[in-house]
Order: sequence, then C-alpha cells, then structure tokens
Amino acid sequence: MPKNREIARANLENLYRIFTVPEAPDSTLGAIDQAIFGDVTGFLQTHIVAIERNIEEIEADFSCTSIPEDPTYVSEYTEFVKEKLVAQSVHTAAPGFVGHMTSALPYFMLPLSRIMTALNQNLVKVETSKAFTPMERQVLAMLHRLVYQGTDSFYQKWVHDSSNALGAFCSGGTIANVTALWVARNRLCAPDGDFKGIAKEGLVRSLRHLNCDGLAILVSSRGHYSLGKAADLLGIGRDNLVLVETDTKNRIEMEQLRQACRRLHDKNIRPLALVGIAGTTETGNVDPLEEMADYATEIGAHFHVDAAWGGPTLFSDRHRHLLKGIERADSVTIDAHKQLYVPMGAGMVVFKDPTALSAIEHHAAYILRYGSKDLGSHTLEGSRSGQSMLVHAGLSIIGRKGYELLIDMGIERARKFAEMVRQHPDFQLTSEPELNILTYRFCPAAVQNFLHMATAQQLCRINTLLNEINQLLQKNQREAGKTFVSRTRLRIPPTGRKMITVLRVVLANPLTTEQILTEVLEEQTALVQQPDIASLVYGLKSICSEIKSDERSVPVADPFDSAAQKS
Amino acid sequence: MPKNREIARANLENLYRIFTVPEAPDSTLGAIDQAIFGDVTGFLQTHIVAIERNIEEIEADFSCTSIPEDPTYVSEYTEFVKEKLVAQSVHTAAPGFVGHMTSALPYFMLPLSRIMTALNQNLVKVETSKAFTPMERQVLAMLHRLVYQGTDSFYQKWVHDSSNALGAFCSGGTIANVTALWVARNRLCAPDGDFKGIAKEGLVRSLRHLNCDGLAILVSSRGHYSLGKAADLLGIGRDNLVLVETDTKNRIEMEQLRQACRRLHDKNIRPLALVGIAGTTETGNVDPLEEMADYATEIGAHFHVDAAWGGPTLFSDRHRHLLKGIERADSVTIDAHKQLYVPMGAGMVVFKDPTALSAIEHHAAYILRYGSKDLGSHTLEGSRSGQSMLVHAGLSIIGRKGYELLIDMGIERARKFAEMVRQHPDFQLTSEPELNILTYRFCPAAVQNFLHMATAQQLCRINTLLNEINQLLQKNQREAGKTFVSRTRLRIPPTGRKMITVLRVVLANPLTTEQILTEVLEEQTALVQQPDIASLVYGLKSICSEIKSDERSVPVADPFDSAAQKS
Repeated sequence: MPKNREIARANLENLYRIFTVPEAPDSTLGAIDQAIFGDVTGFLQTHIVAIERNIEEIEADFSCTSIPEDPTYVSEYTEFVKEKLVAQSVHTAAPGFVGHMTSALPYFMLPLSRIMTALNQNLVKVETSKAFTPMERQVLAMLHRLVYQGTDSFYQKWVHDSSNALGAFCSGGTIANVTALWVARNRLCAPDGDFKGIAKEGLVRSLRHLNCDGLAILVSSRGHYSLGKAADLLGIGRDNLVLVETDTKNRIEMEQLRQACRRLHDKNIRPLALVGIAGTTETGNVDPLEEMADYATEIGAHFHVDAAWGGPTLFSDRHRHLLKGIERADSVTIDAHKQLYVPMGAGMVVFKDPTALSAIEHHAAYILRYGSKDLGSHTLEGSRSGQSMLVHAGLSIIGRKGYELLIDMGIERARKFAEMVRQHPDFQLTSEPELNILTYRFCPAAVQNFLHMATAQQLCRINTLLNEINQLLQKNQREAGKTFVSRTRLRIPPTGRKMITVLRVVLANPLTTEQILTEVLEEQTALVQQPDIASLVYGLKSICSEIKSDERSVPVADPFDSAAQKS
Repeated sequence: MPKNREIARANLENLYRIFTVPEAPDSTLGAIDQAIFGDVTGFLQTHIVAIERNIEEIEADFSCTSIPEDPTYVSEYTEFVKEKLVAQSVHTAAPGFVGHMTSALPYFMLPLSRIMTALNQNLVKVETSKAFTPMERQVLAMLHRLVYQGTDSFYQKWVHDSSNALGAFCSGGTIANVTALWVARNRLCAPDGDFKGIAKEGLVRSLRHLNCDGLAILVSSRGHYSLGKAADLLGIGRDNLVLVETDTKNRIEMEQLRQACRRLHDKNIRPLALVGIAGTTETGNVDPLEEMADYATEIGAHFHVDAAWGGPTLFSDRHRHLLKGIERADSVTIDAHKQLYVPMGAGMVVFKDPTALSAIEHHAAYILRYGSKDLGSHTLEGSRSGQSMLVHAGLSIIGRKGYELLIDMGIERARKFAEMVRQHPDFQLTSEPELNILTYRFCPAAVQNFLHMATAQQLCRINTLLNEINQLLQKNQREAGKTFVSRTRLRIPPTGRKMITVLRVVLANPLTTEQILTEVLEEQTALVQQPDIASLVYGLKSICSEIKSDERSVPVADPFDSAAQKS
C-alpha cells in the first residue's frame, strides 16, 4: 500500500473511532469520561467563586485564530479544558455567588442533560423528536396552567392540538419577550379585508391601514433591556419603547403610564403593548399587574408580563398573591434556567389565547407542513434541542411543593439579608426585597449623618464618590473570588434625577446560608479599609467636615432616605 | 418537635440533598448517574431509527397538564425517561437515518458537554463566564478566518476587541440569519444627520428618510424558511421577500434576480439584502456566489450567505472552490450543530466588517456596560450557555484535516448514492448532488418509458399519483423504523409550473455505509409492493395503457427529464 493511502486509511479509522460509542468503560474514551466525571464532581464541590486572573491574561490562552490543521488526542484536549477553561470559569453554583441570576443546579440535571445531549433530538419537527414533541407540549401546558389555571377540558382540547401551541419554548427570556411582542404586533396588524396583515405586507402598510403614525411599547424604567432589542428588531424603534417612571417600590406609576399613553395618543401613536414586570431584573419588584390589566383592556393594548424571574413565585401558596393579575396577561415569559433551576438555555412564553401564536405561524415544504404537530411552525427559532426535557424533569422530581420551598426560602433569605444591611451602620438598603432580590450600598455611618445637611452640590459630590467606592468595592470583591455580588445604577425616587451605583444581590441558591451572607458583608467591610477605597472614603469625610463647618449650608432632601429605610 | 415542622424539616433536607454533588460514585445519585451512562451507551449502540408508535398514542404518556404536587424519586423518574422518552425518541445518530441534517456526534462531545452543563456559564457577560468569553471570541475568529482568510494582524486587532465582535454565537441558523438581516437593515438605515437611525426611530421614519416605499430581501426559491420569519419579524413583510427562480441545478437565475430588482426599483422598493445559499436545505446546491457578490456591490445591497449547511465545505481542499465568492459576503451563517458535529443548539453568524455588529449594539446598567467585553451587547439572544466550547472542542480535536475528511466522504457518498439511483430502473434522480444532499423519487421504469408520450393532462394525473406514492413510501419507511429518508416538494425546472414530491437524502453521518444505502433503496422497492402503494402503482399503469392505446396523444416535454439524468 502506498504511504499516502496508508496514512489516509489510518486517519479514516481514527475518524470512525471518534464517532463510535465506547464498548466498555475501560476503553480510552470510557476512561476519559470517568476522569471528567471525577473532575466535574471535584469542581462542583469547591466553594470559591473564581480564581482571579486578569481577563487580558486569559485571552492569551485563546488568541490563536487559525483552526488547528491536525487532530488532537481527546485526552490532551481535556487537559487543556481542565486547566484553561474549567479552572478559569466562574463558579456560578457557589453559595457565595449571589450577584446574578445563575444558580446551583439540582444534581440530577447533569445525568439527565447527558441523555438529552446523547439523543440529540431536534424539536423543530416530530420526525427528529418523536416523544419529545408531546413532552414539550405537556411542559408548555403545565406552565400555562400554572399561570392561567384553565380547566381540564381546556387543556385536553389544546395541549396536543396540531394547528396551535399554548406557548413557545426558546433559548431564553429575550427570545420569549421578542416572540410575545411579535405576536402582539401581528395581532394588532392582522389581516383585515384587502389588507393582508403585517406578516405579509410589512409595518409601513400596516400603519397606513391602522391610520396611525407609529406603534409603542410601554414598560416601567425597570424593564429588561431585551425589550429595547425587541423594539429595534420589530421595526418599532427604541424611541417608541416608552419607559415609565416607577414609585418608591420600583413599580410602574400608573398615573405616569396613563399620561404617557395620552401623549402617544396626541402624536397619533398607538400603544401596541403594555409590559408588566413580575420580578424586575435589578430589584426583584412586581408591577401592579391587576391595574395594568385593567388599563390594557381599557386602551385595547396587548398585556405582556415579563415574569422571566418571578414567574415561579406562583408555586408558593404564601407568596403567589404578589403576582395577582398575571392570569389576565395575554402573554407571560418565564425562564426555566432561572428559578426552575434548569441549565442555561431554557426560556418560555405562554399565551392566554391558545390560537395567539397563529399570528406568526409559518410553514415549509420539507417540514412544518399544514396539520403536522411540528412545534417549529410556531417558534421564532428553528432547530432546537430537547432542553424542555429538563423542565419536565424539574417539575416531576422537585414538584410544586419542592419549588414552593425554594421560593419561600429565597424570599425569607432576602428579608434576612435586608435586615443585616439595615442593622449595619455603614450600609444603606436601596431597595427593599419584595421577592428574593435586593440592592444596597456602602455608605459610612459618619456620612449618612451628614446627608440631610448637605447642599445639592455637596450631595452630588458625595454621591459621585459613593458611586466610585461601591463600583470599586464590587470589583475588588469579584477579583478576590471568595464571594460575588453584582452592581447596577438606579434612579432612586427620593432624589429623582441622578443615578446612583448600588450593589445587587440575588438569593436563589438554596445552599447560600446566613453565615455566607454575613461573610459577604464582612468581606465588604474589610475591603473598604484597603488603601484604594480608604482614600476615597477619606475624601468623603472631608466633604462632611466641610458641611459641618459650613454654617450656611441649606438642608435638602436625603439622596436616599436612609432614616426611613432603617425605621 | 410537632409533626408539621418535622415534615418541613425532612423536605428541606431532601431539597438540600438534590442540590448537593454526590460524594462518591456509589451514592444513590452516583449510582443513577452510572446506570444512565450505561443506558445511553446501550441506546447509542442500537442502530434502529425509531420504534414505530403512533404519535397520538405517545401523547397519552404526556397528557397530564397539572404540575405534580409532590416530589418524585430521581430513580423513579429516570425509569419513566427510559421507557417513555428515550425508547420513543428518534435515533438521529443511526447510520440509516439519512433524511435530515441531524447526525451522529463524535463521542467526546458527551463528556465535554457534561462539563459545559455542570459549569452552567452564562455567556451574556464576563462576570458569569470568565474564560468562556475569550474562548467564544476565539471560536468566532476561527470561523471568520475560515470564511474571510484575514491576516494575522487583523485577527490580533479584533479577536478580543472590547467594543466589537467578529460575529455572534446563537442557538441556530435561524437566529443567525435574523441577526445578519437585522444588521443589514440597521446599516442601510443608519443614523444620518438629524435622522437617528432605524434602531431609535423605527422603520416608518427610516423609509421616509431613505425616500423609498419599502425594503426587500432577495433569495432563490430554495431559500430557507427562516428568511420568511426574518422578513416578518423585521417589519419588512413576506411580500417583500422576493423568491427568485432557480436554474436546473437549483441555483438562483442571475437574470431573474436582475429583473426582480428592476421591478422593485420601479415600485420604489429598495433591495436591502441579497441572500446567497451555500448548500440549499432541500437539494444541497450552492448559488453563484461570485456573481451575486458582484451584483450586490453594483446595487449597493448587503450580501448575506446562508452557509448554515455548506459552510464547512471550506475545510476541504478538494471542494472549497464550490463556495468561491463566499469571502466577499458581508455576513455568513454557519451552523455548528450541522456539519461541525456539535450537539443541537449552536449557530453562528460572522461579519466581514468587524464593526458591523455595532448596528445592533445595546447596553444595560447592570451588565453589558460600555467598554466591557461582555458578548451580550452584540447578540440577539440574552443569556446563553457555553455551547461554543463544543465548537472549540470539535475544531481542536477533529482539526481542519479531520473535518476535510468528513466533508469529502459525505460528497463521495452522495455521488455513489446518486449513481445507485441512476442505475435503478424504478427511481429517478430529481437533483444531482453538488454537496452531500440529493433528491429522487420512485417512478416505475414502465411509467418512465411512457412519460414522453403523455398529454399534459395525462402527465398531470401521473405526477399526482407519483406524488401520492412517494409520500406514502416515505411515511411507511419512517414507520417501519429501520431507515429514514425525508421528503419535500420541488418545482423542477423542466416542467416549471407544478411541484412534485421527492425523497430527500442527507449524507453527513460518517457511519452510513454503502451497504446501508443499498438497503434504503431495497426497502423502498419492497415497500412499493405492499398493497397500499401497489394499488396506486396499478393506477399508474392503467394511465400508461391509456397512453399506449391513445393514438392521438400529443407528446410533451418530460416532466422530469429522466433520460438526461441517466446519461
């Protein structure tokens, strides 16, 4: 055999080998699999958040942009993964990682998601998913029922109905929100007489048909940034995403909403949808959903509730009432990779009207044929994995009562942490937890005492310094890698105009104990003593001395009314 | 302790337990994990496509729409999964599953995807992904380089640039295509003087600014159905998705494209983008990309190439030339879950201009801040999993040469299967494979001999019956569960007007042998002998007798010129 053909044959054999399932666990691939199993277990048992290394340094390990010419041994590659990827990733499951919405996973999700990956089903059509299609329809119906509490006969009729879907499973809350607003837009601009509808004729002709100059989406200023993307994508324009002011509890101001709608009316712009939030991303508050539902009905707008975060509160007998009115929404977004504890990549939107999704229905010649049960005819995405299986697993194994416990514990923990912040002289609570999210900031007691005496200009200087301090504090804590809180900028109603930097805590990991929360605050107290922050704190104190010595200082409103919070 | 509190405490302990990583493989969860490992291995070693069971029957196992109140044991649930989900899924990895684009996975994808799941990173931001962010940027740069062949210094400059991204990783080709066209739309309607751009002002004002009555997207009639969704979603309207006729090789007719653009011009509609296809979904053909690039430049339209399927052909020294001109595209879609052999849920779009994605850039207060390296500021989706790690693994382990081998083998296999179809008297090849996809239909030799003598009306009757036969044939073969081909409806140029039903074969699984392909045809030959199809074939023959006896029959063009195909 000539040399070249020999090499070609060897390559081919290697290639076949990698596509072949190892016969026994003691084969090379089987052994690697076992070793990885051990590593993952080890990693998950470690409780640090991240080992600090500058992102620019890490980039050096990922800077070659040429695709390797030759194959590498799996074992060699897994070593690389261990050292360069796993060791330099963020431990989102660590109990001290309380800064974002990514939490620990129930361990059973791992073996089950391995099955999901191995089966490699494609949910766009029955031909590549079979039982996964009815399974996903069941999951959508269960979530629909959680929100809308329909009757048995309603679900019997619709759950497996071939020309409709009760909702859409998608990669996350953003696609869920986009899908909801897409449906809302297409329903408002539905076919009517000679007008063939927006799906066919486009937005310009639709507005001509509706006889208006624009469409608008209204949401509170706490709305998720995905709504801005939706407004852009759908051709509505971000200028027509109207952000309505919130009250002291971060909930939409109904009177402001009404005024905004009146202003739109004067400009001949039609309110396409009102978006209520059940669990704002930054503060975890819930809009007055009932009032919003009333008003949406009054003005004939679609009412969407973004419950990506807060939806699972419906599992809790004790806290469900917080979401009162959600059952009147036309559509509701719930993220399973948040409080349903499913791995990343699982969003859902459900629609009250089981025929709503027909507004975006589409077909093709080789799949999604009319009358087929293919889920793909009602989703924004095309090919999709069988991720809904993990939602099915969570609902089945944890059950309603298990989720209830998780929800109740999270809210309880948030209240406790809020209490710790209130008790601590050097911190200010900047948003009271309604669900399991809260914000606060470091503000030395000495400074808090002078806030009410400061001039507007002094206050502004104080807040600028406090913003800088809290920003640095969050960064230093993240870099230390023991625990992690996030930060955001909020406009706090008492001051109204300026944004202040706050620390944000999300309490969804059931393994986060009170002890860990105590440590988070202790670490922060220690970090502000370090030279970089201490020098800024020194600057704060000199402003205070200035205020003290300045007899002519005119008292203004507290930038954030800490006294009220502490009472 | 009162009974209730005791129960509550027990529940809590159980809950903690499921969130805790098993200490040893012989713990209950460890044992379940091992058992699942065995089941998955067993399943993957089975070579049937699916066990036939009516979808309505399967639905019965997924019909309860109430969320279970109480928790279930993991072991109990995994039994359910085994019996009701795994056993009733479609074996997309089976070598006889040659009907869709979902194929076998290299085995190493399984342990690696377990790491990915366990780490549960969120790629929207560095704070929840750390090393995964540079890793994903590297993957995007590798794919960019595969397409555009930029210089080292180009990639050094852009790969980790904080305010830009060379592309977007997403859940699949649909989101990739939507992202490309969103960028195209926003760049055409960019800020200009007083006009703040479409992202802010919306589509209606944009058209006023551009002084035109509409935007259009042009693609051949073989374009993927996701483009219709994009046209709808972006507010352009499906009527403005212009489907241009194809030549006998399923490639866009350039003259028809020019005429279509002229007609748009007369209606004051601006061609926003031309979409070239590198591997049509139904027939695997490649548009004349160079000519399209020339024409796009001429008319000032964005040139997008949908290479979701065919992109990886660029790995092959022998076949790369088929995609000549792709390097001139403004954007290119490539699906990793297709010919990069990554599990479901991995699409990508890369942009020639590294600043193109700024047209859809967005920020928020708590993440995606200006200057951050967060990938989420340039993606349509929000939270995303670390799936790009599996692309990184594929590129590293299989290497350019490994993928080349896979591509070459697929094309070779398709040519062999085409030859088998050509040699078989009772089948007609309806599209010649250019890449690794082909279509054909069952058409008895006896009928083929009479086609050229039939009247138009007789031809129509023959094709109606042939459509019915091929539809039933595909269904029966799928239900038998040994092998699987798909079907679609194509308008074949020689006849022009009518759609005919064809069988479609995608040859991407490296384990699909010639022997298996022989069996696919043999099974089909056997299936047409079964009573249900045989009676239809009998009907065909009686039309043939009619033609024979009908001396006045006027010969017309062959509905599909089988003689030409066989030569």
